[in-house]
Amino acid sequence: MQHSTSSALVVSGWNRMSYSYSDNTFFSQQLESLIHKVHALVGNAITQNRYIVFGAGSTQVLSAAAYALSLQNTTSQSPTRVVASVPYYTLYKSQLEYFNSEKFKFEGDAYTWKNRSDGSANVIEFVTAPNNPDGRLNEAILGGPNVKTIYDRAYYWPHFTPIPAPADEDLMVFTLSKLTGHAGSRFGWAVIKDETVFNRMVTHMHMNSLGVSKDAQFRAFKLLKAVLEEGTGIFDFAYRTMKTRWETLAATLSTSNRLSLQNINPQYCSFYNEVREFSPAYAWLKCEREEDKDCYAVLKAAKIIGRQGNLFGSEDNYVRLSLIRSKDDFNILIERLQKLVSEEDGTRTM
Amino acid sequence: MQHSTSSALVVSGWNRMSYSYSDNTFFSQQLESLIHKVHALVGNAITQNRYIVFGAGSTQVLSAAAYALSLQNTTSQSPTRVVASVPYYTLYKSQLEYFNSEKFKFEGDAYTWKNRSDGSANVIEFVTAPNNPDGRLNEAILGGPNVKTIYDRAYYWPHFTPIPAPADEDLMVFTLSKLTGHAGSRFGWAVIKDETVFNRMVTHMHMNSLGVSKDAQFRAFKLLKAVLEEGTGIFDFAYRTMKTRWETLAATLSTSNRLSLQNINPQYCSFYNEVREFSPAYAWLKCEREEDKDCYAVLKAAKIIGRQGNLFGSEDNYVRLSLIRSKDDFNILIERLQKLVSEEDGTRTM
Repeated sequence: MQHSTSSALVVSGWNRMSYSYSDNTFFSQQLESLIHKVHALVGNAITQNRYIVFGAGSTQVLSAAAYALSLQNTTSQSPTRVVASVPYYTLYKSQLEYFNSEKFKFEGDAYTWKNRSDGSANVIEFVTAPNNPDGRLNEAILGGPNVKTIYDRAYYWPHFTPIPAPADEDLMVFTLSKLTGHAGSRFGWAVIKDETVFNRMVTHMHMNSLGVSKDAQFRAFKLLKAVLEEGTGIFDFAYRTMKTRWETLAATLSTSNRLSLQNINPQYCSFYNEVREFSPAYAWLKCEREEDKDCYAVLKAAKIIGRQGNLFGSEDNYVRLSLIRSKDDFNILIERLQKLVSEEDGTRTM
Repeated sequence: MQHSTSSALVVSGWNRMSYSYSDNTFFSQQLESLIHKVHALVGNAITQNRYIVFGAGSTQVLSAAAYALSLQNTTSQSPTRVVASVPYYTLYKSQLEYFNSEKFKFEGDAYTWKNRSDGSANVIEFVTAPNNPDGRLNEAILGGPNVKTIYDRAYYWPHFTPIPAPADEDLMVFTLSKLTGHAGSRFGWAVIKDETVFNRMVTHMHMNSLGVSKDAQFRAFKLLKAVLEEGTGIFDFAYRTMKTRWETLAATLSTSNRLSLQNINPQYCSFYNEVREFSPAYAWLKCEREEDKDCYAVLKAAKIIGRQGNLFGSEDNYVRLSLIRSKDDFNILIERLQKLVSEEDGTRTM
């Protein structure tokens, strides 16, 4: 709200009516240019001489990437295997299973496919770095000529993670939602090295929704412009917020033997030029007691609604809690966790 | 541009950030209420006690409908056959073939499947009324318990067609693009009778793009509000524009023996309370000469770019020309057609 003037917009009724822009593309070149500048400012991705595709949030961009890379498969008749290391973002599985294409099949945990000698199988690995749900800077598990990798970089911003170096992968996905917080605009983008993959992703956007809403593109333009005008200001603010939340959460659970948090070692951050703690978007909570197999139920009894571990390919003694909701929501979460921890001894099964 | 004040919008930077609205839906209830009012004003669709789903243009809504109805298939193991009567809107084919789901397969012309006794096959028929490319008020070709119908009503507005009666089909698709002209906003909607189909289409929007851009929804809200404030004014203006264009085109081709236009008999229009001519969005041009098998090439030689008949499942002696581009584009089209017609006798193969 502090930047309400610079990020405000005024639009005439007849503005941006047609499908395409004056250069006949579906994507605003001015917005693309801002995206390059934001990545250059933060140093979280190499985008020079890369192609950029826009989509309706990272959700649409991720499926575009999966379709584009599975079409790369010309050597095999069998569907491309799509994998991600556990715990993984549940959307990869639900989305691909929903689309139900003959071209690909979600096959679960990437570790299961490591060191398997099956040279003919084409594989796509989703690498989420920082990871959703646990915030770790995941790296690819699989490699080789038949493996394509989609790097989901949604959370690779200095308010969630140290930035050890600019990412420079073949296909990286970002989203406005985790940069400025404007999830409702549905605006995401991919940074791509290969022209064929780029063209296929553009085709996907045509087939899926005839491009991306110009209203969303214009909103993104205004927001990224405000980000750039602030210099590092927005990141400083967001980092302080996330760090304070994370420290509050860690302090709340510090005396608990029942609930534990993920622990990630600090790393050097090139944006802040110092070693920094992680301040992830989600807590990946573990119920430590043998009898607390259903951690979701344990939390639900305390009026805390998380997401079950099995949604992330994991066990149900894990639950994901969001730390990026409103201030009020976060304060209520902490209150209820404090209550749960304070009652801990009384609930112990002897 | 005449309505630039009433349809203008001002948005603060922090407005509409989160995925959902305060009632936890992804769709604006205020916008839904305006959609009901616009249909009631025009009398082109019954929307009381119907469900409404939003999407990124009719493009996304149409695929959501196809997915939702093919999931209805529980009686058959084989993929749902998707058909449309020739000439049909090319997107139905290209989109479904692109998504390549195991659940459905595009099978071309609906007439081919008429009177075939194959009781076990599930079928989805796209009925486009008015039709793209030829502007006719198509009706369903197929019927029976295994047939589901998606009515693409994108052009069912009084500037393109007489409105004989409000449409009242199970699943009808509309789009802002063909109502106010704002194609770039990517905003469309479906009006649905069945709750299960509605829920499946909502799921589709979640899986595809986590809902619809709130910026696009807000833009649609402002535009539909302006439409309602004008009463019938916007339709009167758009009808005059389309009618004048159609008459100019018909006059241009009236002396031609080489090129002919579709001919649709006038019908009673309940919106204007009189018998009215059609004023379609596209000319479905036929090259009448035996040697003009490639009508696209004939026009291209005259610097007129249309869309080949085969894209619509038809023969290549047909071409679709758009009449809904800018005034300048339309004037250039007419000039070039006049030139082509005036040179007609000289090009005749003897």
